[in-house]
Order: sequence, then structure tokens, then C-alpha cells
Amino acid sequence: MSRERLYLFDTTLRDGAQTHGVDFTMHDKQLISQLLDDLGVDYVEGGIPGANPSDTELFATRPAFHNARFTAFGMTRRAGRSASNDPGLAAVLDAKADAICLVAKSSAYQVRVALETTNEENLASIRDSVSHVKNAGREVMIDCEHFFDGYKEDPQFALACAKAAYESGARWVVLCDTNGGTMPHEVETIVREVTKHIPGDHLGIHTHNDTEQAVANSLAAVRAGARQIQGTLNGLGERCGNANLCSLIPTLKLKSEFADKFEIGVSEEKLATLVHVSRTLDVILNRAPDPHAPYVGESAFVTKTGIHASAVLKDPHTYEHIAPEAVGNHRRVLVSDQAGRSNVLAALEKAGIAFEKNDPKLTRLIEEMKEREAAGYAYESADASFDLLARRTLGTVPDYFEVVQFDVNVEQRTNALGRPVTVALAVVKVNVAGEMLISAAEGNGPVNALDVALRKDLGKYQKYIDGLKLTDYRVRILNGGTEAVTRVLIESEDETGARWTTIGVSSNVIDASFQALMDSLTFKLVKSGAPA
Amino acid sequence: MSRERLYLFDTTLRDGAQTHGVDFTMHDKQLISQLLDDLGVDYVEGGIPGANPSDTELFATRPAFHNARFTAFGMTRRAGRSASNDPGLAAVLDAKADAICLVAKSSAYQVRVALETTNEENLASIRDSVSHVKNAGREVMIDCEHFFDGYKEDPQFALACAKAAYESGARWVVLCDTNGGTMPHEVETIVREVTKHIPGDHLGIHTHNDTEQAVANSLAAVRAGARQIQGTLNGLGERCGNANLCSLIPTLKLKSEFADKFEIGVSEEKLATLVHVSRTLDVILNRAPDPHAPYVGESAFVTKTGIHASAVLKDPHTYEHIAPEAVGNHRRVLVSDQAGRSNVLAALEKAGIAFEKNDPKLTRLIEEMKEREAAGYAYESADASFDLLARRTLGTVPDYFEVVQFDVNVEQRTNALGRPVTVALAVVKVNVAGEMLISAAEGNGPVNALDVALRKDLGKYQKYIDGLKLTDYRVRILNGGTEAVTRVLIESEDETGARWTTIGVSSNVIDASFQALMDSLTFKLVKSGAPA
Repeated sequence: MSRERLYLFDTTLRDGAQTHGVDFTMHDKQLISQLLDDLGVDYVEGGIPGANPSDTELFATRPAFHNARFTAFGMTRRAGRSASNDPGLAAVLDAKADAICLVAKSSAYQVRVALETTNEENLASIRDSVSHVKNAGREVMIDCEHFFDGYKEDPQFALACAKAAYESGARWVVLCDTNGGTMPHEVETIVREVTKHIPGDHLGIHTHNDTEQAVANSLAAVRAGARQIQGTLNGLGERCGNANLCSLIPTLKLKSEFADKFEIGVSEEKLATLVHVSRTLDVILNRAPDPHAPYVGESAFVTKTGIHASAVLKDPHTYEHIAPEAVGNHRRVLVSDQAGRSNVLAALEKAGIAFEKNDPKLTRLIEEMKEREAAGYAYESADASFDLLARRTLGTVPDYFEVVQFDVNVEQRTNALGRPVTVALAVVKVNVAGEMLISAAEGNGPVNALDVALRKDLGKYQKYIDGLKLTDYRVRILNGGTEAVTRVLIESEDETGARWTTIGVSSNVIDASFQALMDSLTFKLVKSGAPA
Repeated sequence: MSRERLYLFDTTLRDGAQTHGVDFTMHDKQLISQLLDDLGVDYVEGGIPGANPSDTELFATRPAFHNARFTAFGMTRRAGRSASNDPGLAAVLDAKADAICLVAKSSAYQVRVALETTNEENLASIRDSVSHVKNAGREVMIDCEHFFDGYKEDPQFALACAKAAYESGARWVVLCDTNGGTMPHEVETIVREVTKHIPGDHLGIHTHNDTEQAVANSLAAVRAGARQIQGTLNGLGERCGNANLCSLIPTLKLKSEFADKFEIGVSEEKLATLVHVSRTLDVILNRAPDPHAPYVGESAFVTKTGIHASAVLKDPHTYEHIAPEAVGNHRRVLVSDQAGRSNVLAALEKAGIAFEKNDPKLTRLIEEMKEREAAGYAYESADASFDLLARRTLGTVPDYFEVVQFDVNVEQRTNALGRPVTVALAVVKVNVAGEMLISAAEGNGPVNALDVALRKDLGKYQKYIDGLKLTDYRVRILNGGTEAVTRVLIESEDETGARWTTIGVSSNVIDASFQALMDSLTFKLVKSGAPA
């Protein structure tokens, strides 16, 4: 059976730019456009020419796309203006874009309350605007804003708006659930009705995630006949975001209910770069990736439950709905207090630590882990500390150096202006192969001072740790019982960009921090192959 | 038309505990149970008795619930064992639980590959286990693991498993999309088929978010006849999480497609606490809340687009699918600070602080809060610090005492046995009404030492603070960039059982902790009516 073509329309740079806290630079927009073209998206909406300087600049040159059609967004002509005399339309037509997407109201309530004009004028604006852009030789599409709410309140008028666009020559009529409150079964019913008037291969769907159903709404529209899906990378967008293309694309490619019927522009090879695409956007936005994101999240294929882990090791298909590699992700079996032997073995394999299956040291390692986890350690969140614990139990970590003594002092006094001033100072005494090295340092706080002092002079190991830096520090008090303990997690990064997390647990926060710092240093030395 | 009852089953403490990075303490579990009962959830699954010490301890006493049935999770009897001789079943029956939920395979593939047993043995295990628990006089339900995948591969066997559970007396047969790969239209079709054999008011739905459709799948099952929904707060859960009750509950209460047909245990009044419930879980987990979460996210009702903002100001209904207040959220229009002022007024009223609506000090308070929140303070999580800031700005907090100087020292040395010993010592100099008081104390760590020293001698105020104790201490690093600051939250409790939270922000963790400690002491003095 030949498969029908389904078109992907990305609006990360337009609707996604409305995300609270997101502010793309011109350079960001160029990078993201290329990323999307490369992925195989059919339309890349770049923004609103004339709305702000960076959007205007972006549309001054057409990007060198291989696949995608570069799309400019604008508004249908204003009430009372002619299309040829509307500055908004003129700015959109000036843009170096392959396609033009214009927004129009399609709800009688919105026309009355927000636009304060008449239904007839709204229909005329749609017809005039589409014809005008079409006559200028451009591909044109109409975003029917508030279409589903409009249809529920007055189906005739909503349909009249969509038909006006189609009959005037719009390539696509996009049905928008602007406020994000429509349910999937409603979308399916309404889109099916619309296909009686407009062919499905001219209908698009644009949804928002306000009830956490933007993806389901998009797929419901496809099932009902729509053949263009609008969405954003990582589900960016105003309020709760737009439909997430990073969830939609794998479902369309990998789930037979869709893959058997439809073809999209994203190849299998490009699908395997999806994790990379998603993370690149997070890097550009300087955001921590969502570890639980469907398909592309760091934890999307993580197994923590012991019995699940043993089944996954027998056959991954038992607890995985797709192969993680298909989207460029990977399987992880966690070590944790729920975990049995099989989790620990899988973690050792993943870390590349050699072991004999019958080595009694393995049993000791598992027991050691259970004891430590009962005391508050959480090895699933501290890969590098797990790595060290395993290597130490198996006997392969050298004693590089020993901290003989440390002393940290924090003092607050009132300065000459009567303001409190706080100073932190640390002194560390380290034995490196018989040589006693004493270093002192000030820091932002006691842990920072200790970290700086510790790394100031490690003798012959100094060169291995020069590129090391702390990137995150988290503290939690555990009320296991009457004796509260402090758990510290430290994330480190080195000159190669590698990141790892270490853990310390103690009743004293400084002591716990010190353990995590020591593990981080030692892990770096092991990783760098420093000699004993 | 009388509405049908729909039951909510929360598994935050069981399936949610499988979330990568989540590790509930016993106290966390008690807090969350109470939160869920208070919200109006029908079943609260507490964990797996016998699987680990904290779950076993939790089930040693039945919590004092007002609404919910406390539920223990376990496995159906193992192959080759009798139900009365199965240690897993015995542990579940020992638990002080109102209801018992047992998991059973319902896929022939899983029975073969993961369990390595026969279909007949699997059916016998379901029947025996249900009868055994039922005969012990307990409400029993069966989680049919892998039901949808099982049904697609062998509908007869999947159905046979579900029917075996129902016919043996299970109150609920819960259909699970364990791997999270099923599409909503498949869920709807399959559940509709199952209702031909088992009445819908005995069917539950349990979904995972691996294709971002857990919420849609749950609602599809309800449309097809299922009358119990399983989910977690904030969608916690292994991999990409479980169905998110914080999205499902508002949809069921507020969307007429469901609200007209079904009644749930969550009242309108409790629905308005949903944001609070969601944020409380994040605080317990020491996690940053997802600002874009449907309904409960900080940005869920934020409008950034200019034209949307002006329409929202004309009539909020133009760009809001529900009234934010219904779930305890609020509208934010980024071009206006109207929302800020009304929030502050509401918070003052809530704290019982008298104010004049036109007092210019109110404007100063709002500006002070904005500045401080930009610097990292989070007053939403620190009720007592907000209270003090407000009272100070309005001029009603006395200067009880002044800390002139403090000095904290942490030292680690090797003792006579060659083991490291860490000692923390603090010295504090306090001016109480002209009298200089110097106290010193040792502690578990620097903050504890500082806290003990500070409270050792406050002169005439000592009697007011004798019953005060620190119950929690949380630290988070903000910004992660070059100028990281540390945010400390301290929870305190006094002899009356009252609890409050204070906050401190500084580049130095000791300094931030000191601010939070001082606020806690001062709040206690204000609360106790200590004279100036």
C-alpha cells in the first residue's frame, strides 16, 4: 500500500518564541533553522517580519535550506484596510520566505470581543488577504485561530472562515486549538466534519498543551484526515507549550498505526539524531533538559525496579515500547536500593568495568551498596561515586593521595560601614606519596574554599585536575529517623566536556561535601589514567 | 441527569517512587499520604510492604485518613507456590492497609519471556491470589501488567487474565499500559471490548507517558467505560512518568465532556488547592517546579504576546481555557503588575496582617519583593520570611536583638585510631538590649553549631524560644553560571506543633543559612508576642 504524505510544520521560532523566559537571538534562530531543515521538517516558520528587528533581519536573506520551506508569519489585513494597503501584509510579502502563514479569527465570539468587527468583514479580510498573497506568487496558508472553540459555539461561521481561505487559494487551512482546552475526541469529530468541505490534504492542525493533550490532539486530527501538523521542538510555546514535535515525530515514524499509513520528511537516519536535536535546543536556551521527556529524555529508557531490570536484561522488548537507539537515546538500568544483582551487573557493564560473574567481591559490592543506601547514599544519582565504589571493591583504584587534615572557618563581622561581611577560609594538608603539601584558600562559602584549597596543590597529580570544575552542588537533609543526615551531590565537568556526579553523606554538611569533592577528584584521576 | 462515580487511585508513593532521582523518606511518605487524602483521592497506594524498610514501617500503622483507602501493593503468588505459603502475599496481608493491589502478567509473551512459566499457571496464580486476599476479608484489585500489548498479541489470553481476576472477586481489574506505547484510539477500542466481559465500574486504567499521551489514554479509557484512573502527582514515575493527576483532576472537574457525566472525590474547594499540592511535592523532592505544567505551572496562565494580552484584559475567556483560580493558579500578563499586587494583598490577608489598601508602604513591599525574588528569594515557599518582610515593611517588627559577630569552624583530623574525625564549633556574639552575650557551641555541622550557639543565650527572650527546633534544611544553588547564589530553606517547629519556613539567599551557604535561622527566631518571637 502506498503511504500518504504527512507534512511537518515547525513553529519553534514563532510560537515557541512566546515561551515565558525564552528570548532567541538572531544567531540562535539561524542555528535552529538549520537544525530543523537538517532533521527533515517541511516548513520552518522563522517569525514575524516587521514585528521586531531580529525577525526582520532573519527574513532579509533566505537561509540555504535543503528540504524545508522557510515560512513567514503575519496577520490577515486589518478591518477597513485594503490588502494592498496593509503595512503588516506588505512586511510579510517583503520577507525572503517560500511560504506565508497568515492568522485569522474563526470564532464569532473572538471577532466580536477581541477584534470588535463583524463576521462579514472577517470573511472578507480572509478572502482578500489570501488572494493578495497568492497573486504575488507565494504559497499561502491560513491559521484559523480559535477554530475549535469557534466551531463549538457557531459551526457555520467557523466553517465559513476555513472555506473562505481554501476557496481563495490557500494551500493549507490550519485548524488551531489556540487556548488548548479541546479534548482529542472533539478534535477528531470536528476535523472529520471539516473534511466534508475541505480535502484533508489541505488541512493542518495546531494544538496547545493546556490539558496535556497537544500530542494526542494532533494525532486525533491526523486520524480524522488532516495532513499537516504544526508543533515545536521540546514543546516550547506560550503557557504550557505547543504540540511537541520531539514526541510526535518518533510516534509517526515508529508506531505502525501511523508509520504504515503515512510518510514524513524525517528519514530513519535523521530520527536517530532526535536526542541530539532536542539537547541542542536546550543548550542554546541554557536550560536543563527534561530527563523525563518522552523518547528523548535522559530517563526515558531507565529501569529502576529490580524485577523490571531482570526482564529487560532477558529481552529489552519486555519493558521498552521502542528501541532507544531509533531516536538516538540509550537504555539505562539503575542501581538503587530497589535493585537486585542484575541492575548492578548491568551498571558495571555500562561503566566498562571488567568483572568475573562468580567473583565473591561482587556480592560484597552489592551488600556494601545496600548498607550505604540505607545510610542515605543514592548511587543512581551519582554515577562517578558508584564507579569508584565498584572499582575500589574490586580492588583497582590506587591511593593517589591522602588528606591528613582540613580546617574551614567562616566568620561574620560588622565592617566599618556597619554592614555584616562574611569570609570563608580553608586550610588543607595533603600527603602525596610521602610529601606533605599544605594549601589555604578563601571562597564564596566553606565548600568553595575547601574545594579551591584542595585543588591548589596536588603535587604530581596537579596537571590531571587543572581542567576540572564544579558545575552543580545540591544538599538535602534526610530524616531517616532521629538522626538526620546530610546528602550532598556534586556535579563536575572537565576540559573534554565530560560530566559526572559524586555523593557524600554525613551528619556534617562539610564532611559530606568533602567526601563528594574527594570522589570527584579521584574519579578524574582514574578517568585520566593518572599513575599510582 | 445523575452523574456516575469515577474513582481516583494515586500511586505517587509506589510507581512514582520508581522515578529516576526520587527517593522518599518515611516522613516524606507520611506527608504525601496526608496531602492526597486531604485532596480527595479515593485510593492512596503507599508502597510495597516487605520490599524495603521504609515501606514496611509505613504500613506498620494505618494513617488517619478522612477519605482515602490506604492501599498496599504486592505480587500475585509465585509459580509453584500456594497462596497461603507465599512470603510476598503474607507481607502484603500483614500490612495495615484497607485495600490490596496485586500485579499479574496479562501478556502471553511476558509470561513466557519474563516469568518463564505457562499461561495456565499464570491464570491459576491470579485466581488463587485474589481468592486468598478476598478470604482474608480485604478489598483486592489486580493490576493487569502489559494488558494492552498483551491484548494486541493475544486478546483471548489477556481477557482470560482480566476475567480470572474479576470472577475470583477482585473489586477492580486495572488495565495497564506498562510500557506506555499504546495510542489513545487503541485504548478506547480495547477497553470497550473488555466492558463486554467485565462491567466498567470494575475496570481501572493505568498508563505511562512514553508517547506523551498518558493523560489522553486515561481519558480515552474513561470514555470507553473504565471507572478508576491510576496516576501520580506531577506525573512522577519510571522513565517518562505515569498519568499526571494534576492534569487529569482539573479536566475531569472542569471540562463539561467529563464533568457533566462523572463525579469525583475532589471538591471544588479542594481543586482550588491543586497548585499548592503540586508545589508541596516539589518542595519535598527539592525539585524546581515545571513552570509549563498544564493547569498548575507558574506559566500556565501567562500571556506574553501583546495582542493576546490586550484581549485577555478585555475578557480573560478570550485566551484562557479555564479560570486559573479554579485550580489555585493565577493569571499573569507580563506587561502589567496588576497580578502582583493582588497576590500580595491576598497573602497579607491570609497571614492575618492588617493593612490599609492605599498605604504607600504596600507599593514599597511589592517592589521589595520583586527585587528580592529577582535575587533568588522564593517567598511562595517561605511563609514566615514573607510574614516578617511584610511586617517589617509595614513597621511592626521590633528589633529584639542584634548579632554583632559570629565565627564558625569545621576541622577534620585523624584520631588516635587513624580515622578522620570532624568537629564543628561556632561562637556568636549577640546584643540584647545593650547587654553583650557571647555563646559557643559544637554541632553536627556548621549550621547546626551556629543554630545551637545562637539559641543558647538570648537573655530575656530565651524563654520564648526554648521549644523551637529545626525540622528541615534545604539548599539549592541558583543560576549555575559564574555568579551562583545559594538558597537555603529552613523549616522550624515549636512546642505547639506549629511549623513555618524561612529563607536566606547569599553567595555563601553559611550566610544564607544564618539569614534563615535569624528569620526563624524572629518569627517565633513575633508569634509568641514577645515584648520589644
